[in-house]
Amino acid sequence: MKHIRGGVTAPSGFTASGIHCGVRRNKEKKDLALIVSELPCAAAACFTTNKVKGQPVVVSAAHLANGVAQAIICNSGNANTCTGEAGIAVAQRMAELVAERLPVKAEDVVVASTGVIGQLLDVTIIERGMDALVEGLSPTGSIAAREAIMTTDTIKKEVAVSLELADGTVVTMGAIAKGSGMIHPNMATMLAFITTDCAIAAPMLQAALSESTRRTFNRISVDGDTSTNDMVVALANGKAGNAPIVAEGPDSRAFQEALDEICVELARLIARDGEGATKLMECIVSGAVSEDEAVLLAKAVISSSLVKTALFGSDANWGRVLCALGYSPATVDPGKIALAFESGRGYLEVCKDGAPIAFSEEKAKRVLSDTEVTILVDLGLGKAQATAWGCDLSYEYVRINGDYRT
Amino acid sequence: MKHIRGGVTAPSGFTASGIHCGVRRNKEKKDLALIVSELPCAAAACFTTNKVKGQPVVVSAAHLANGVAQAIICNSGNANTCTGEAGIAVAQRMAELVAERLPVKAEDVVVASTGVIGQLLDVTIIERGMDALVEGLSPTGSIAAREAIMTTDTIKKEVAVSLELADGTVVTMGAIAKGSGMIHPNMATMLAFITTDCAIAAPMLQAALSESTRRTFNRISVDGDTSTNDMVVALANGKAGNAPIVAEGPDSRAFQEALDEICVELARLIARDGEGATKLMECIVSGAVSEDEAVLLAKAVISSSLVKTALFGSDANWGRVLCALGYSPATVDPGKIALAFESGRGYLEVCKDGAPIAFSEEKAKRVLSDTEVTILVDLGLGKAQATAWGCDLSYEYVRINGDYRT
Repeated sequence: MKHIRGGVTAPSGFTASGIHCGVRRNKEKKDLALIVSELPCAAAACFTTNKVKGQPVVVSAAHLANGVAQAIICNSGNANTCTGEAGIAVAQRMAELVAERLPVKAEDVVVASTGVIGQLLDVTIIERGMDALVEGLSPTGSIAAREAIMTTDTIKKEVAVSLELADGTVVTMGAIAKGSGMIHPNMATMLAFITTDCAIAAPMLQAALSESTRRTFNRISVDGDTSTNDMVVALANGKAGNAPIVAEGPDSRAFQEALDEICVELARLIARDGEGATKLMECIVSGAVSEDEAVLLAKAVISSSLVKTALFGSDANWGRVLCALGYSPATVDPGKIALAFESGRGYLEVCKDGAPIAFSEEKAKRVLSDTEVTILVDLGLGKAQATAWGCDLSYEYVRINGDYRT
Repeated sequence: MKHIRGGVTAPSGFTASGIHCGVRRNKEKKDLALIVSELPCAAAACFTTNKVKGQPVVVSAAHLANGVAQAIICNSGNANTCTGEAGIAVAQRMAELVAERLPVKAEDVVVASTGVIGQLLDVTIIERGMDALVEGLSPTGSIAAREAIMTTDTIKKEVAVSLELADGTVVTMGAIAKGSGMIHPNMATMLAFITTDCAIAAPMLQAALSESTRRTFNRISVDGDTSTNDMVVALANGKAGNAPIVAEGPDSRAFQEALDEICVELARLIARDGEGATKLMECIVSGAVSEDEAVLLAKAVISSSLVKTALFGSDANWGRVLCALGYSPATVDPGKIALAFESGRGYLEVCKDGAPIAFSEEKAKRVLSDTEVTILVDLGLGKAQATAWGCDLSYEYVRINGDYRT
C-alpha cells in the first residue's frame, strides 16, 4: 500500500466538482459538491445513531438500501435537519437535480447536508447552481469538492492510497471528509466520502466500512455532541478490473487494511481540526480487560473538558485523566494505573500504581506544548488495548460556537 | 417554611470557623474550615460514584458507617486524591487533629478536601493552623467556613430555612456548598454540608438526603466531569427538642420539603456559578414517558457543549437542543417535540412537531441574553417531567482550566 494524491478522484472512473451556489452568504466559500462515478457502484454507508436524523440521512439511507449508488451531492451551510416533510422533499429534489443532468438514477444519488440545524434549505438556490456544478466535474475535482463540504474546518481532509491485489491488479482508494464541530460519532461519523475502483461486492464493502468506522471514526470526539447528519459513504465502481472481492481472503484483508489506513488518517485529521483546536490528543489505553472497555476509557479521557483545557494550557494535570478514567463505566483499579505523556518533544511518566511520580514541570510543559500529544494509560488489568483521538478545548471553540448561527 | 440567615450555624448547637492555614499560597484566600456540633449527630452522606475516589472520601465513608458524626473538617487547595496510602494517613490525621482539640471522637469527624488531584497534602500545614481554626469557632462562623471551602467559586453558596413541625417545634436547617468545576454529580455531588437541629433518626436522614440529592445535585452539570471528591453530608443534632422523626409522616414530609428547598437552591447556585459561567441554564423536559427518561434528556441538553456555547452567545440555536435530545439514550419522537426559550425578558416558541416556527431574531437575542434562561421541551409522549440545571460555556472556563494547576 502506498499513499498517493488525488482524494476521491484518485480512483479510476470518478470525477468531482465543487462550487459556490449561494447557500452560504460568503461568496468566497464553496458550498456545493458533487462526486460521480462513470459506472454504478457497490455502495456502503454508516449513518448517525442520533434519533433526530437529518432529512438527507433519511433519504440517503433509503437510496442506499439496495447497495447501489453512483453519485453523491452535498451542500454545506444548512444541514436540512429538523425541517419536517418539506425537508425530505428538498433532499429528494437534490437527488433529482443530479439525475436530470447526468446518466444517473435519482435513487442512486446519495444526498448529504451540513451546517445549521432547523432552517429549511431553499432548494432553488441549489438548482441555480446545478449547471455550473455538473460542468465543473473533473478527474482532479477532489480539491473543489473537499473545499465545498467544509464548514468550520481549517485543514484539508483528503487521503488516497493504492494497493496491489493477489492477481496483480493495482486498485486505488480515495476519500474526503469534513469534521470540526458536533463531533462525537457513534456507529457512524461526520461526513466522509470514500471512492475506490476496486471491484468488491456491496456486502463485503459494508462489512469493511463498518469495521473501519468502529475502529476509527467512532473513537474520536471534539465536543461530545453526536451530530444528526453523520454519514460515511463508500462507493466502489470496479474499474480497476480485479477479480471481484466476494469473500474473505488475502484481497479482502488487503482492502480492509487500506480502508483502515484511509479512515484512521481522516479520523486523526478531524480530531486535529476540531473547532478551535490547537492540538491533537491521542489516548492509548492498554492493560484493559477487553477492547470495548479500553475504548470506553480512552473516549472518557479525550472527551473530558478538564483534560482538554489542561492540554490547551500545556498543563500536565494528570489527576484529571485519572478522574475521567474513574467515572467511565469501565473497570479500573485506581491503585494499578500507570500514566505517561508523550509527544515529539519527549516522554514523561507522571503516575505509577495510582500514585504520583515526581517530574520536572519544565519538561512537562515542553512535552505537552507539542501539536500532537499522546496520553499513555496502562490499567495493569489485562491485555486489551484501544486508541481514541480528540483535541484540546480553547477560547476559539467558544468563539466559533457562541455565534455560529447569527 | 421560611428562609433565614446563618447557613450551617443557623441551627442551634452548631459553630463553624474558617482560616487561611497555608495549603494555598494566596494568603487572602481561606483554605481550612471546621463545622462542629455540641452534641453527636445523626449523620447521612452521599459520596461520588467515581471509581477513583479521593482519600478523604474513603476515610469519611468509614467514619460515617455508623450513622453518627459530630464535626466536619475541610480544606481547599489540594484534593488529597490519587495519593495512595500516604493520602489515607493524611485524611485520618486531619480527623485526629480535631479530636485532639475538641470533645469529639476522631471517628466522628468527616474529612473533605477539594483542589488539585495527584499531589500529597502536607498535613503539617493543616496542623499549624489547627489552634487558630478551633479558636475561631463561632455561632456566626458559617461565613468564614463557606469562604474556606471555595475554590474557583465566585458567589456564596449558603442557605438556611426554618420550619414548624406537627408538635409546634420550630426546627432549623442550614447549608453551605462549593461547586464551580468538575461538576457532573452522579449519586452524590460536590461538597455540600447541611446542618439541622431537628431530631431525626439517621436512617430517615439518609433516606431524605438521598432523595433530595437524586432530585437536585444529581441533575446539575458544569462540565460533564464527575469529581473524585463529591460529598454531601447532613448532620442533625436534635437540639430543637422535637419528637424525633423516626418514621414516615407529616414531619418527615415537612423535613423532606425543607431539605429539597435547601438542596435545590444550592444546586442552582452551583450551576449558576459554574467555572466561567455567565448564565444559569435550566432545562425542563415534560411529556416524557418516565421521570428517569426526562432526567436523561434534560441532562443531555444542559451538558451539550454546543448548547452551552450558543447560550453564551445568546443565540437561539434550537437545532442543537434537538440534536442533544436525539443522542440521549431516552425515547424521543422528533416529529412530536415542541421547544421554547423563557427568561425574565420574555417567552419564545421556536419549534413545534419537530419543525421550525418563525421567530424574531431580535426578540430571541433579548430572551437569551438574561442571566437565567429556561429551555422548555415538551416531548408529547407521556406525563413525566424533570428539570436539570447547567450553565453556559465561556472563554473564562477555558482560561480557568488551561492553567489551573501551574
